[in-house]
Amino acid sequence: MLVQEIIKKKRDGSPLSAAEIRFTIAGCVQGTIPDYQLSALLMAILLKGMDGEETATLVDAMTHSGAVIDLRDVPGAKIDKHSTGGVGDKVSLVLAPLVASLGVKVPMISGRGLGHTGGTLDKLESIPGFTIHQSLDAFKQIVRDVGCAIIGPTAELAPADQRLYELRDVTGTVESPPLIAASILSKKFAAGIDGLVMDIKVGSGAFRKSIAEATVLAELILEIGKAAGKPMVALLSDMNQPLGHAVGNALEVEEVVAALKGQGPADLMEVTLELGYHMLKLANLASDRRRSLEMLQDAISSGKALTKFAEMIRAQGGDSLVLEDLQRLSQAAHHAVVAAPQQGYIASMDTEGLGMAALMLGAGRQRKEESIDPSVGLKIEKKLGDAVQPGEPLVELYYNDKAVSSEIVTLVERCFVIALEPVQPPPLIIKTLY
Amino acid sequence: MLVQEIIKKKRDGSPLSAAEIRFTIAGCVQGTIPDYQLSALLMAILLKGMDGEETATLVDAMTHSGAVIDLRDVPGAKIDKHSTGGVGDKVSLVLAPLVASLGVKVPMISGRGLGHTGGTLDKLESIPGFTIHQSLDAFKQIVRDVGCAIIGPTAELAPADQRLYELRDVTGTVESPPLIAASILSKKFAAGIDGLVMDIKVGSGAFRKSIAEATVLAELILEIGKAAGKPMVALLSDMNQPLGHAVGNALEVEEVVAALKGQGPADLMEVTLELGYHMLKLANLASDRRRSLEMLQDAISSGKALTKFAEMIRAQGGDSLVLEDLQRLSQAAHHAVVAAPQQGYIASMDTEGLGMAALMLGAGRQRKEESIDPSVGLKIEKKLGDAVQPGEPLVELYYNDKAVSSEIVTLVERCFVIALEPVQPPPLIIKTLY
Repeated sequence: MLVQEIIKKKRDGSPLSAAEIRFTIAGCVQGTIPDYQLSALLMAILLKGMDGEETATLVDAMTHSGAVIDLRDVPGAKIDKHSTGGVGDKVSLVLAPLVASLGVKVPMISGRGLGHTGGTLDKLESIPGFTIHQSLDAFKQIVRDVGCAIIGPTAELAPADQRLYELRDVTGTVESPPLIAASILSKKFAAGIDGLVMDIKVGSGAFRKSIAEATVLAELILEIGKAAGKPMVALLSDMNQPLGHAVGNALEVEEVVAALKGQGPADLMEVTLELGYHMLKLANLASDRRRSLEMLQDAISSGKALTKFAEMIRAQGGDSLVLEDLQRLSQAAHHAVVAAPQQGYIASMDTEGLGMAALMLGAGRQRKEESIDPSVGLKIEKKLGDAVQPGEPLVELYYNDKAVSSEIVTLVERCFVIALEPVQPPPLIIKTLY
Repeated sequence: MLVQEIIKKKRDGSPLSAAEIRFTIAGCVQGTIPDYQLSALLMAILLKGMDGEETATLVDAMTHSGAVIDLRDVPGAKIDKHSTGGVGDKVSLVLAPLVASLGVKVPMISGRGLGHTGGTLDKLESIPGFTIHQSLDAFKQIVRDVGCAIIGPTAELAPADQRLYELRDVTGTVESPPLIAASILSKKFAAGIDGLVMDIKVGSGAFRKSIAEATVLAELILEIGKAAGKPMVALLSDMNQPLGHAVGNALEVEEVVAALKGQGPADLMEVTLELGYHMLKLANLASDRRRSLEMLQDAISSGKALTKFAEMIRAQGGDSLVLEDLQRLSQAAHHAVVAAPQQGYIASMDTEGLGMAALMLGAGRQRKEESIDPSVGLKIEKKLGDAVQPGEPLVELYYNDKAVSSEIVTLVERCFVIALEPVQPPPLIIKTLY
């Protein structure tokens, strides 16, 4: 089989055969196909697409390109949640221990932040001692014993995705639904999941700005889940403003702890509980929505969820005393206020801009090799639809430099549009696809 | 400037700016842009196209990516001919000395055969001693003294094209009109031409099977020529059968010598004279078609054209005595006949198949590093429209192996379709574009 013939076939718009897809992924992992042929093929796939059958084969080939964790001997349904990334999205940290405290097994392999979006791993690493590096055996053991574990990608799982993702990142071939679906699902399937709830973010802080784009991705993922016999649900949720108030790693962990203590912001709780309901349903632990939400609320009010979070932190080497004493988290030296310039109502936010501002304070990275400062970030004091008076704080900035740059202050100010008339905030859960 | 942003822009169908194109070509030559980004961009260009302005900028950037030969101090108009490649296409060997004998300067940088098509350089190298490797100074000197020189590509001229062509060859990105036009014209412009006649082959033995495809390429090339102030003409000529009878390197040189002695096959002469007319016109050496054709015929019947070929051969180190004694060319040890299986008329030929048969005998190469046997090849005894009797020779095979493989004989047999009713051969010159 010749790679250039496979490239030409896709270039000319024909579906690739299963043998051609498997040959390509094998060559990708074995290194027999050079980067320049892979990137030409990736561009052809981005521009010509892949149908559901091709994508399902691609997912399967990528899943089996490395180790596949066998969790069948761990009792309980292994259900994961995956978000396409947003600003202030700390849902995983609340949700994993919450549903694990109710019997769902959550084997979560998460990612770091890149660009304006935060990453679950970076947030967890702001907890002293917490390590996201675990052997596959340790990962499995923690899932078995605790019920949830959140680790970083490992070279053993879906190595084809690692090579392809690095290439896609620098060749303009990230934004392809079949390639995105294959990247997400191959890692999930290799981690041994039985089912998945997808949280696809839409709006000014998300990678997908339109509902139509997000729907295409959701439907493709659901189709592959069906083909693989793994039940899935996809939520489209709003990312036209940060989720909750905190944007920045330790600041978000503080908000997570508040949420697990029953004091979370309304929007964060709404998304978390909705995703939790679907995870319980996929795990056959609840079928009735009202009953599910009661179970989730009980797990919070009883302290079971917080205890589960403490167990997970300890199992992954972290200092669980932070849950009682937030001062053990890294603290920024300074804070400053960005105030509303006029009276009115928050009409819109440039959420990507707010993510970029947090990044510029040191909370994120532009390039993979940059390090981050866990203590810095933003607290969003006003949300969409809120009334403001001139001089009222819109955002609090947490920083460690001597002075916050006026560039960042101006950037944050410009992220807010204040209207004179009252504004209706957008619905948080846009749609649910099965 | 970020390469991935340039890739994304083309991917999304936008025209690239001149600065972006020049940045890319500079990075291509300097090696600062890796192969995998170039190949993703090439695929995006193939699928999304480039307009005339972009292509003209690309040609200019590639032309100036290395040395540009200055032929302004060589008297006379420097006019070249370029063919897109076919089977039995030995026109350059007849045409260059023919028009040079009438005062046109022909600085021709030619190519090798690849796949089913033959290459001018391989044909010339079947002349003992002939070398296609010349310094740029020597090349210029031969053009000045003799009037024509035919050499191989050098690392100094259009190095961007060399890198891009190697990548295109293995990434399914050859068949893009703007990339083809840029590859051809950058080398021609770097060689210092004033004008160009393009011979775009169409049919079963050509890379372009349809007149529509060939017209797109012709129009793009003419547009760039206009933008560059270099007059050009493009002919679409038929390649539904080999040109002339000989297919194979020394066999074709024999046919070239016959042609320069006034005994060339009708189709070879028709194409050569038509291209010669346009070259004389571009050189302002003739404006009237009838007068041009008379000049060209005279140059042949007077022996001037043959003498010019002898001069060029000697100037490039070759043995010009081959022109008087064809036995000095490498001779195949054996020959065999493929006979007509039935009575009728030659209705069609799989010309690519005939080229592949010559390649399998050793006349061509599948991969660049393969060597070729100058003596082997085919003589096509029957052409489209010819009447045949059963047992009459269709093709003579010239070979050096102990026996010709039955695979090749079967392949050649299957290349001919014989009809019961008389068949009209296709017109040779399909159209001329200015």
